[in-house]
Amino acid sequence: MSVGQAMKAIDFEFSFHLPTRIEFGYGKASRIGEMLLQLGGKRVFVVSDKGVESAGLLAGLTESLLASGIQFDMYTDVEPDPSLETIDRGAEVFKREMYDCIVAVGGGSPIDTAKGIRVVAFNGGSIGDYAGVNRIPVAPAVPLIAIPTTSGTGSEVTIFGVYSDWHNNVKVTVTSPYMAPTIALVDPELTMSLPQKMTAASGIDAFAHGIETFFSVRSRPASDALAMEAIATMNANLRLAVRDGSDVAARIGMSHGSLLAGMAFNNGFLGLAHAIGSALSGHCHVPHGIAIGLLLPQVVEFNTPARPDKAAKIAKLLGVQGDQLEELAAQAAPAVLQLVKDIGLPTRLRDVGVSEEKLSDIAKDSFKSGMMKFNPRTPTESEVLELLKRLL
Amino acid sequence: MSVGQAMKAIDFEFSFHLPTRIEFGYGKASRIGEMLLQLGGKRVFVVSDKGVESAGLLAGLTESLLASGIQFDMYTDVEPDPSLETIDRGAEVFKREMYDCIVAVGGGSPIDTAKGIRVVAFNGGSIGDYAGVNRIPVAPAVPLIAIPTTSGTGSEVTIFGVYSDWHNNVKVTVTSPYMAPTIALVDPELTMSLPQKMTAASGIDAFAHGIETFFSVRSRPASDALAMEAIATMNANLRLAVRDGSDVAARIGMSHGSLLAGMAFNNGFLGLAHAIGSALSGHCHVPHGIAIGLLLPQVVEFNTPARPDKAAKIAKLLGVQGDQLEELAAQAAPAVLQLVKDIGLPTRLRDVGVSEEKLSDIAKDSFKSGMMKFNPRTPTESEVLELLKRLL
Repeated sequence: MSVGQAMKAIDFEFSFHLPTRIEFGYGKASRIGEMLLQLGGKRVFVVSDKGVESAGLLAGLTESLLASGIQFDMYTDVEPDPSLETIDRGAEVFKREMYDCIVAVGGGSPIDTAKGIRVVAFNGGSIGDYAGVNRIPVAPAVPLIAIPTTSGTGSEVTIFGVYSDWHNNVKVTVTSPYMAPTIALVDPELTMSLPQKMTAASGIDAFAHGIETFFSVRSRPASDALAMEAIATMNANLRLAVRDGSDVAARIGMSHGSLLAGMAFNNGFLGLAHAIGSALSGHCHVPHGIAIGLLLPQVVEFNTPARPDKAAKIAKLLGVQGDQLEELAAQAAPAVLQLVKDIGLPTRLRDVGVSEEKLSDIAKDSFKSGMMKFNPRTPTESEVLELLKRLL
Repeated sequence: MSVGQAMKAIDFEFSFHLPTRIEFGYGKASRIGEMLLQLGGKRVFVVSDKGVESAGLLAGLTESLLASGIQFDMYTDVEPDPSLETIDRGAEVFKREMYDCIVAVGGGSPIDTAKGIRVVAFNGGSIGDYAGVNRIPVAPAVPLIAIPTTSGTGSEVTIFGVYSDWHNNVKVTVTSPYMAPTIALVDPELTMSLPQKMTAASGIDAFAHGIETFFSVRSRPASDALAMEAIATMNANLRLAVRDGSDVAARIGMSHGSLLAGMAFNNGFLGLAHAIGSALSGHCHVPHGIAIGLLLPQVVEFNTPARPDKAAKIAKLLGVQGDQLEELAAQAAPAVLQLVKDIGLPTRLRDVGVSEEKLSDIAKDSFKSGMMKFNPRTPTESEVLELLKRLL
């Protein structure tokens, strides 16, 4: 259904769940102590990583905890794309010490780690045991506060966690409302020191969450409304944040846009760019955001014939003028490509060192992703291969 | 912030919480048995009222419960604008029988009653003890499923409950995330038999939730996105649902629009029309929706100078053509008035038997409402009186 139209179909049916309470504000993370006291948190397990620590992003937090008389321990042994073992080891520490709250600070890796630790601490076993959808029996009995330091993953509000199973060389996804943080504490100040390249890469990932969930076969008006706001907000702020990282307003816009996209894709799910992106990152170690930015314009072009109405709306949200649906729809992919170029991200596979002989494996493995089924147009393997070849 | 603009203010700060899981679909209520079994519900307390019962709306529900082997008892002694005693008495029954789930079926009254019963059952005392914001200590330990039978109150997703304290002749509002239903089961089929006049009155109330939360000083982009979708959806469907109550698509549209408005105002709050509306209903027994419909066009006109940007967007959502902000803004109130007329609701106080001598008391009491403070333009008492006089 598009905005404001009379309903057509009796089979219009959906679920929507956003269990996480959102607290958004510049500088709000330095008031974490008060928030924890309100929640009854006195002994806190802080999950983060070395990068966040060395960037000095934990200073305001620890100051606030100390000022509030809250005890805490740090768990910063979290690697990018965290392994099942990292989660299970963290859960052991958590259980031994019986903390009454978990706080995660970082990008997707520490936040997903904390989600997993909390679940394992109250359900036993290994986080791998809960792979799949709604397979966690018991709601964790302590709150989790997620504090993102990038504007990208949306993990602070989602019910998903992604982990690396290095024994079987696959990614494991756990989906359950019990994975959702209790509170997402989104403080744009923590993104101020994000380097230019990471601002661009994480930003285009967040932008793609808005685009993919808007195109998704599981989209619904509530997720569409959030996705459209997310797309427009990031389109207006991503170039500015990349050009000048000290632009506070642009950083606030990106934190907010990324959050809105997370709220949307938690309910609408993703699609082809993320499906191929996983395989591309897995085979060629292309960083996630770079891979997504590179693929997204081609995916929008591929999806446009299936949903010209949505493509036209995307074009309008990106500032394309016009009233004619087909003309607008045809401008969606070029407008997305222009954004990727404007923020200085690579637009060719050769720019990231991917050569032709890898492409058939990437095309094949993109079908292993659970996200493929939400794309509005289902490609054949040879269509994915063609799409990749056009990007050489 | 409006859609897609760069952020301007470092003080852009908000909270957003929507704890209720939403299950929407035509005919979905007849699958309540399965849903309860998944939640572990075996002995269920069903809260409803005589009107819902005699309209036959409990038949599908009880059939599904019986088919699933779920025991249940009915509590249908719920009057419109339920009293504190109704809630406390219900909580006594609940505690005595130790049910493992509550299901509420009806308009705002049964749903608010069930919210209150669940809170009192797990916190003791009287529901009046928890009047105010965040004053409930303990989260209720059983789930509440709210099933609306009108498209109006939005109560199925809100954290509010409103009760009548007849000893002190005031309304008592309880606000807490612990009031929110666990699941909102929104089934448009249950609204199919709603009489024309109630369709119009409850529909304009839901529409006003969208308008008032969009104007609210506590609005935020996420609530704005939901409110705009709600306004456009109801504008496209309310006239159709009133004209022909058997128009399934229009009923689905109204159920969905009302739900979106509830999701929005749960986080953005209401304003002047609801503040004056409470006093008008209290003094002159004008039904809530009728009062709101009568007041809303004047309130939109009153608010337009304070937020011409939002008034212009409302006009666009209601189908007014144009690009000039001020011209559009000036058309918002007439467009709302046209909707009220089109659905056959009264537009004059004399049409509902309210005479001039009552107006000063109504104006005075409208300031007792907590919603006054969320209106974007704060009126004086004489401004409210003037507004009412224009409606004579």
